[in-house]
Amino acid sequence: MTKQLTVAVVGATGAVGTKMMEQLSKRKFPVGKLKLLASKRSAGKELSFNGETYVLEEATPESFEGVDVALFSAGGSVSTALAHAAAERGAVVIDNTSAFRMDPDVPLVVPEVNRADIKEHKGIIANPNCSTIQMMVALEPIRQAYGLNNLIVSTYQAVSGSGVSAIEELHEQSVQWEKGKDVEATILPVKGDKRHFPIARNVLPQIDVFTDNGFTYEEMKMINETKKIMHAPELPVAATCVRVPVVAGHSESIFIEVEQAGVTVADIQNVLKAAPGVVLQDDPANQEYPTPLEAEGKGETFVGRIRKDLNNDKGFHLWVVSDNLLKGAALNSVQIAEAMLEDGLL
Amino acid sequence: MTKQLTVAVVGATGAVGTKMMEQLSKRKFPVGKLKLLASKRSAGKELSFNGETYVLEEATPESFEGVDVALFSAGGSVSTALAHAAAERGAVVIDNTSAFRMDPDVPLVVPEVNRADIKEHKGIIANPNCSTIQMMVALEPIRQAYGLNNLIVSTYQAVSGSGVSAIEELHEQSVQWEKGKDVEATILPVKGDKRHFPIARNVLPQIDVFTDNGFTYEEMKMINETKKIMHAPELPVAATCVRVPVVAGHSESIFIEVEQAGVTVADIQNVLKAAPGVVLQDDPANQEYPTPLEAEGKGETFVGRIRKDLNNDKGFHLWVVSDNLLKGAALNSVQIAEAMLEDGLL
Repeated sequence: MTKQLTVAVVGATGAVGTKMMEQLSKRKFPVGKLKLLASKRSAGKELSFNGETYVLEEATPESFEGVDVALFSAGGSVSTALAHAAAERGAVVIDNTSAFRMDPDVPLVVPEVNRADIKEHKGIIANPNCSTIQMMVALEPIRQAYGLNNLIVSTYQAVSGSGVSAIEELHEQSVQWEKGKDVEATILPVKGDKRHFPIARNVLPQIDVFTDNGFTYEEMKMINETKKIMHAPELPVAATCVRVPVVAGHSESIFIEVEQAGVTVADIQNVLKAAPGVVLQDDPANQEYPTPLEAEGKGETFVGRIRKDLNNDKGFHLWVVSDNLLKGAALNSVQIAEAMLEDGLL
Repeated sequence: MTKQLTVAVVGATGAVGTKMMEQLSKRKFPVGKLKLLASKRSAGKELSFNGETYVLEEATPESFEGVDVALFSAGGSVSTALAHAAAERGAVVIDNTSAFRMDPDVPLVVPEVNRADIKEHKGIIANPNCSTIQMMVALEPIRQAYGLNNLIVSTYQAVSGSGVSAIEELHEQSVQWEKGKDVEATILPVKGDKRHFPIARNVLPQIDVFTDNGFTYEEMKMINETKKIMHAPELPVAATCVRVPVVAGHSESIFIEVEQAGVTVADIQNVLKAAPGVVLQDDPANQEYPTPLEAEGKGETFVGRIRKDLNNDKGFHLWVVSDNLLKGAALNSVQIAEAMLEDGLL
């Protein structure tokens, strides 16, 4: 009989939290007891899981007594306030926020890429940024096979990455637009930032706030997390992160330069065909390539449009798409828990 | 008194043709006589220009007798069939299609960039691809100042680049989507191609059909036209062209490597502040950056998000936005005619 675990979900009503519950159920994670934790404001609400109704409790340090695994997805401030308290009480925290990702004591894990890092944990394991995860799933097999000298990515990110209110904003703006009304923007590009711009019929070259070097935090997350996950601190990485009016599914236009000379498109395709978590969707003659609408609801990372650069023998261009709420967040968190269970770490 | 010219517009009812008429009027181009030419199917329709009503005539070789300037925007096949006939009858053809762009006898012109090429014409002058034009306006001043070693672009292109039917398709799909209906796709990514995919809530990594090397024609246009316009056949250029659910305004995430070492972001900003046709919109602290919705209806090319690469001292990232129907098409064509008039070539 499989060991039954006590699982806590912190932030279960959010865009990612909802998907975490779905994934725990769908993947038959051995949830013996479930605790749904939330802010004081949401406490008392009811949610169903595997046909049973659960009442949300206010998350406090004491909530984590007896918890085996705590999946956090309620924003960085909640994780900062409660993750250590949960870990001190013996729970393994799998944190979907950016609070601990660059902490040297916290493994940052994509199971297909650096599963071995999990065992170094000291109570907290971080789930990488959504746009980083799918890029790692697609690129690590190529790096393992041919090395990697350089990486430049431009993203096309869905609004669900900014939460439920951003999804609602896109819907409202679309309705306003089709009715010929003025479009109101109050959430995107960044909830709480000084200015807001419409996302319907628009693209916004800002995700998260700006850092002093002109890159946004989202871009710096992609850059720094990539180096940490790949254990490649010297790897040159550059990112431009852009929000597009898509509900779910992040897309990425990626340029890489491999180390090895003479690699062909077919070589890259063969590596990706055998790569865990990757679906190769690359047949231009039949217009086969990934799109976010088709990737929505699926757990894999889809790769297509693989082309050799026309000037650089070691250069390749790829198009990588995945559901940002699943592999980019909820699914990856549950997969970390599954890997720990398989490896006897839970 | 300004010389009055006989102007023909071929394809006046299209997305670009409509804007050509607007620009001729708005910019007070000295139109003495106007001939609106179209396919047999559209002949007989009426359009107004400067308060007068014009009847569309079927375009034939004889239509161009007495015409000084003919603006073509009715598809490559119409240009192929009629542009030489028009030129033989003494008209200067300014062609907005891809039919003659790479013809060595045809100058490919962005007036701010290579106006001097106009005088080499033999009757036909080509207007570059929309996504190429705005990139040239932004990058040529930088290349003139600091040289250019490398260029990698990922685009976020509006549906209006695929014509009126693609704009209608986005609207119809959006309405279907908000009503919870199945979304029908019959136009994009490429009218007449084998498969069609929804553009509402989606992005499509295909613009124009695929070539044998895995790049699309749109990507190869950006690559080849850039080299021709800049007179830089050896310049490495790579492009990934993506359609996004935006009505008007193409956006571009561009990586460049300049030749000169030690160039700063402020240097690039200063060059662009003085560049013709460019508006610098680059103040991250105040969330100032270009978006397509804001660029719609404007003639300039907007540049922001200028950052120095974190690893490559000669590397810079930029975000470039312009209205694809204006600077990307209609306005650039009219500007070519204006330059010819100023230079005594008409």
